[in-house]
Amino acid sequence: MNNIGNNIKITFFGESHGEYLGIVIDQLPAGLKIDTELLDFNLTKRRPKKNISTPRIEKDNYKIVSGFHNGYTTGGALTFLVPNENVQSKSYQSTENIPRPSHADYPASIKYKNFNVKSGGGFFSGRLTVLWTIIGSISQQILEKKNIFIGSHINSIKNIYDNNFELNNISSDVCKSLNEDIFPVLNKKIKTEMLNLIKETKNDSLGGTIESAIVNLPIGIGEPLFLSVESYLSQLLFSVPAIKGIEFGKGFEITKMYGSNANDEYTIKENNITTLSNNNGGLLGGLSTGRPVVLRCAIKPTPSIAKKQHSVNLQTKENTELVVNGRHDPQIVSRIVHVINSVLNFAILDLLLFENKDWV
Amino acid sequence: MNNIGNNIKITFFGESHGEYLGIVIDQLPAGLKIDTELLDFNLTKRRPKKNISTPRIEKDNYKIVSGFHNGYTTGGALTFLVPNENVQSKSYQSTENIPRPSHADYPASIKYKNFNVKSGGGFFSGRLTVLWTIIGSISQQILEKKNIFIGSHINSIKNIYDNNFELNNISSDVCKSLNEDIFPVLNKKIKTEMLNLIKETKNDSLGGTIESAIVNLPIGIGEPLFLSVESYLSQLLFSVPAIKGIEFGKGFEITKMYGSNANDEYTIKENNITTLSNNNGGLLGGLSTGRPVVLRCAIKPTPSIAKKQHSVNLQTKENTELVVNGRHDPQIVSRIVHVINSVLNFAILDLLLFENKDWV
Amino acid sequence: MNNIGNNIKITFFGESHGEYLGIVIDQLPAGLKIDTELLDFNLTKRRPKKNISTPRIEKDNYKIVSGFHNGYTTGGALTFLVPNENVQSKSYQSTENIPRPSHADYPASIKYKNFNVKSGGGFFSGRLTVLWTIIGSISQQILEKKNIFIGSHINSIKNIYDNNFELNNISSDVCKSLNEDIFPVLNKKIKTEMLNLIKETKNDSLGGTIESAIVNLPIGIGEPLFLSVESYLSQLLFSVPAIKGIEFGKGFEITKMYGSNANDEYTIKENNITTLSNNNGGLLGGLSTGRPVVLRCAIKPTPSIAKKQHSVNLQTKENTELVVNGRHDPQIVSRIVHVINSVLNFAILDLLLFENKDWV
Amino acid sequence: MNNIGNNIKITFFGESHGEYLGIVIDQLPAGLKIDTELLDFNLTKRRPKKNISTPRIEKDNYKIVSGFHNGYTTGGALTFLVPNENVQSKSYQSTENIPRPSHADYPASIKYKNFNVKSGGGFFSGRLTVLWTIIGSISQQILEKKNIFIGSHINSIKNIYDNNFELNNISSDVCKSLNEDIFPVLNKKIKTEMLNLIKETKNDSLGGTIESAIVNLPIGIGEPLFLSVESYLSQLLFSVPAIKGIEFGKGFEITKMYGSNANDEYTIKENNITTLSNNNGGLLGGLSTGRPVVLRCAIKPTPSIAKKQHSVNLQTKENTELVVNGRHDPQIVSRIVHVINSVLNFAILDLLLFENKDWV
Repeated sequence: MNNIGNNIKITFFGESHGEYLGIVIDQLPAGLKIDTELLDFNLTKRRPKKNISTPRIEKDNYKIVSGFHNGYTTGGALTFLVPNENVQSKSYQSTENIPRPSHADYPASIKYKNFNVKSGGGFFSGRLTVLWTIIGSISQQILEKKNIFIGSHINSIKNIYDNNFELNNISSDVCKSLNEDIFPVLNKKIKTEMLNLIKETKNDSLGGTIESAIVNLPIGIGEPLFLSVESYLSQLLFSVPAIKGIEFGKGFEITKMYGSNANDEYTIKENNITTLSNNNGGLLGGLSTGRPVVLRCAIKPTPSIAKKQHSVNLQTKENTELVVNGRHDPQIVSRIVHVINSVLNFAILDLLLFENKDWV
Repeated sequence: MNNIGNNIKITFFGESHGEYLGIVIDQLPAGLKIDTELLDFNLTKRRPKKNISTPRIEKDNYKIVSGFHNGYTTGGALTFLVPNENVQSKSYQSTENIPRPSHADYPASIKYKNFNVKSGGGFFSGRLTVLWTIIGSISQQILEKKNIFIGSHINSIKNIYDNNFELNNISSDVCKSLNEDIFPVLNKKIKTEMLNLIKETKNDSLGGTIESAIVNLPIGIGEPLFLSVESYLSQLLFSVPAIKGIEFGKGFEITKMYGSNANDEYTIKENNITTLSNNNGGLLGGLSTGRPVVLRCAIKPTPSIAKKQHSVNLQTKENTELVVNGRHDPQIVSRIVHVINSVLNFAILDLLLFENKDWV
Repeated sequence: MNNIGNNIKITFFGESHGEYLGIVIDQLPAGLKIDTELLDFNLTKRRPKKNISTPRIEKDNYKIVSGFHNGYTTGGALTFLVPNENVQSKSYQSTENIPRPSHADYPASIKYKNFNVKSGGGFFSGRLTVLWTIIGSISQQILEKKNIFIGSHINSIKNIYDNNFELNNISSDVCKSLNEDIFPVLNKKIKTEMLNLIKETKNDSLGGTIESAIVNLPIGIGEPLFLSVESYLSQLLFSVPAIKGIEFGKGFEITKMYGSNANDEYTIKENNITTLSNNNGGLLGGLSTGRPVVLRCAIKPTPSIAKKQHSVNLQTKENTELVVNGRHDPQIVSRIVHVINSVLNFAILDLLLFENKDWV
Repeated sequence: MNNIGNNIKITFFGESHGEYLGIVIDQLPAGLKIDTELLDFNLTKRRPKKNISTPRIEKDNYKIVSGFHNGYTTGGALTFLVPNENVQSKSYQSTENIPRPSHADYPASIKYKNFNVKSGGGFFSGRLTVLWTIIGSISQQILEKKNIFIGSHINSIKNIYDNNFELNNISSDVCKSLNEDIFPVLNKKIKTEMLNLIKETKNDSLGGTIESAIVNLPIGIGEPLFLSVESYLSQLLFSVPAIKGIEFGKGFEITKMYGSNANDEYTIKENNITTLSNNNGGLLGGLSTGRPVVLRCAIKPTPSIAKKQHSVNLQTKENTELVVNGRHDPQIVSRIVHVINSVLNFAILDLLLFENKDWV
């Protein structure tokens, strides 16, 4: 399902190795000046980096083919096309009938009766997350004018853990500073350890966790039941390949606490209502509480590895071995961290528009 | 947002202490014989049990006021009304302006400018999950005819852990057997420990985790991007109050593995393609792989506890203390486990109908 | 499909002879005081009148079972139940297998494999339009506070024609005055003629046309393409049984004009931009132009007539004759006129909310 | 609103003078061989013809950038880009602030605060109907394999009327034959008269009506209430600029008949149930009856005419006169007739898929 959105409607299209990927954005206001500097910066951050991830260089030379004139939105559907460049489909071809473990190859070939394009993952490729960067950046520029800031850090790479956010005390400055960083972590020492592990990891791959915060969100955002903040965020986040889990606030840890410890009691502080803790991660009843919204995502190790793996030939139904050629990210946590920010920016803006349509 | 569904459309309504809760179900086929025995059994399992949860006795005397005739669906919108009985709103009234910690009270009173009914949680009450039982039971009877089985067990209460599902080897019999049990666990010894802890927990509350399996799901169910199996399941599950996290397969644990260990390699077994492991929990690229789908949900401790807690008076903006009267569940894990089954049954049926409209 | 709405979501349910019909309304603001006087007046107008239409007396004793407290909306899904009273299913039963000409009976029995309830039309009954009156009245009270007025008159009964609206000059006072009238026409002399024809028409039935105006609608309401004002209005209006055509402005007449006569040229009048004519009925490019929106609906003669008609027995596949017993309206134009107002009020409010969420 | 569709989801984007128009089509099956010959023929028919309509020559050199591989759909979102060529925006520029009568210019400039592109109508241009041809052709090839045929003829140009369809007796051959014709009429003599009138009409423009038939549609297609066949067809048809009215069956004429004449009585013919008349145009209760579905659309005269017209300067708020330069169609009925076929093909296919997902 490639359409989503309540107050802003977005449509994704494209495949890893087609001519264009694209996104159609409907219901943005006319006269919005798109901050292309922010967009370009976010596209850069998402791009693979030498030594950290895959050597594939993508330029993301998007063009806007509708809904845009002289730097401003026209009110019509806003459409970005992103050309696919540097396509090396040859390196994928030999393995057409041999599904790569932990990729979509096998279930997709069944679902689509083998008509789906397998090279590069087709429309299951992580390449499509560039579309999240586009809508995420536009959303970010609108939210930041409303003083709402979203930031994420790499919480862990394999078993190397960064510090956690202090749940009940996250400033917008922390978010802004994380947004400046291509490999955002809270503890700089840990960053070096992580980078070293990544460098050492040859022919294999690493996963990790990402922790995100949404700061200064007004109280009461989210719609009861099927559009709770958790519902919508997780629906959208699980569109990002490789995410295997999501937790809010203390998440799975809260299950080990007594209610009397887990509950976030209220108190008055400088004439404002606040909480003594924020174990619920800024969300109650699916609504924002005014405290920082905090969530964590689990990113599985990149499935493409250079090591030889067991697989099967789908045509002959025989066991075989597979070496996945092509370009591989030893880890994609440091790229997905930026995608998650984009998803969150869009989701929060879309929910906020239920309250009013002031775009600032 | 109280409407959801792609091929079957459902609408929830009701509040904890209104005359009726209800669900409207559209796009079911005409001529479906509703298995009221299964429905009644599932309603019974969800109901609070003496000593395990709250003493409130609910009869769930639903009536069907449209879309139903002589035991069969007519093809029109199918509507169930569930009367609220045994309402004791008095016990809630004194605390109208004092939000209960970790309930929706505070953000809801801001969002709804104090017009929302607070007693019993209003439309944020867990009482609405009875509607999930209704649509879940109808979905279950259809799925089971297609040989698809869904079962869940209480994976932990606080720090007492049940065995885990063996990810790569879960039978439909295990699911069926769990479905017979009001307090379903895999390891019977652990059950006693859990029940003892619950009995001992006075004036406080406990959380836990729930592990679920979907067995015999055909390959290729789920729609790319925004309706991946993970997206849809988590969107719907997070409509259930108290869920704070969801993970699939190995979930957060997979982030600590190398790709070469995490990957589920393919092999031929008795002429069928299968996998050597199932760390991805039966889902790749958002699609079902044919292996068991496995997920885990984190349930926070019931926020209503008898202990005195800090809170504030929203009118006077002064600190105060609060003792939550009324009936409380020391834990709701053993009730939510059945609700989760219902959510999963509906979600999977709705996704399955993208493939074809054979209702069996 | 019983769900509709963009900014306000409504869900209809019920059948002609079930216990309740109902409507669930989501996304209304909390704290809205429902004008029950207006609602009751509108319900009265829709009700059959002695000598004009069917003798069936319906009390429309609705009750609100969720989303409502002490006269105000709570912010939760607002649910009205309308009990069906005075049900005489016996008079329908003998014709179970003999479809009534020009009713939904035959295609419905095929679509729903005979499981649909036929007596009274089941869920195809015009009885469901009472739900339009409910949401229409709530919408009307909101629109009128914004100074937007909607009014309709019976433009014709059979070949007796009322005057037409003056397309380019319709006041809100005309709308208000039409809204006061149970049998609204512009020309009072014509009204007598119409009523006489209705009285004279025994054992047969009459159709007619209805002309509606929307006054003071701001410029630019409507969304391009699939939610143009015409698209949305006609989608909703065609949910009302018996409507066979819709036209805007000059409608089918405009096809006989030259462009130079049909075009609505602009002029300045008292410093405001206005048009010299309004042949387009206040709509261009699917958007409101600020001129009165005018439309006309064709209502077919009531299909239930006392005359003997040809039909077939669906079981024996033999020709037969049918006399439709039960209560019949000699015409339903004078009831549908009020339903159309309700549909228009809801549709316009829902479209208006794309611009902003000021509810007044 | 540029997204629509229930079982197939389509998204339109583009503006008259941008680089590309495009359509994204989701939920088509994988492995569908697109009949590009049919598509190209339909694109040709929609294209302006010398002497009949505007001299602008459009090549419609679409390209497919996703969801397509080696002639077959892949199962991913299918995206067509249609380049805009032969753009002459200069001829429009001088009138930037002077709205063209009966175009969207004025309401659009208010709605979009003047940020919308006016030249060529921007995203309100009839140019976007080329996207209907694309999805309509794909739908047509699927429907025709199911033996369902849709055909339309020019029912009138100004006051020159073609014969009407015989409501109760329309063959698929008639539809096929109309589909072969660029200027389809039933009565060839009338065609000459129409073409002569068009040739004679200089500096002015003509409207007309279009009559369409859907043949061999199974009984029971359509969903009650908001997705009745009439609701969906009219919602989609009113997305086509210049349509001002829609009627089904006898349409507005039926309002002048007695019920006893209007009703379509049933009879057995060659062992099949059929009707003695088809005044309801193959639709009852919003469902197809198995008889031909017949509808008529009113097309207003092309608003762009070479004659001098009254208008206003939006900036100076002064009266002025306007001569619309650029290329103009003296009539667009003969182009819209093909667009209507496309809309109907898509709408019917989308509705049909509610019944089952057999794509043939």
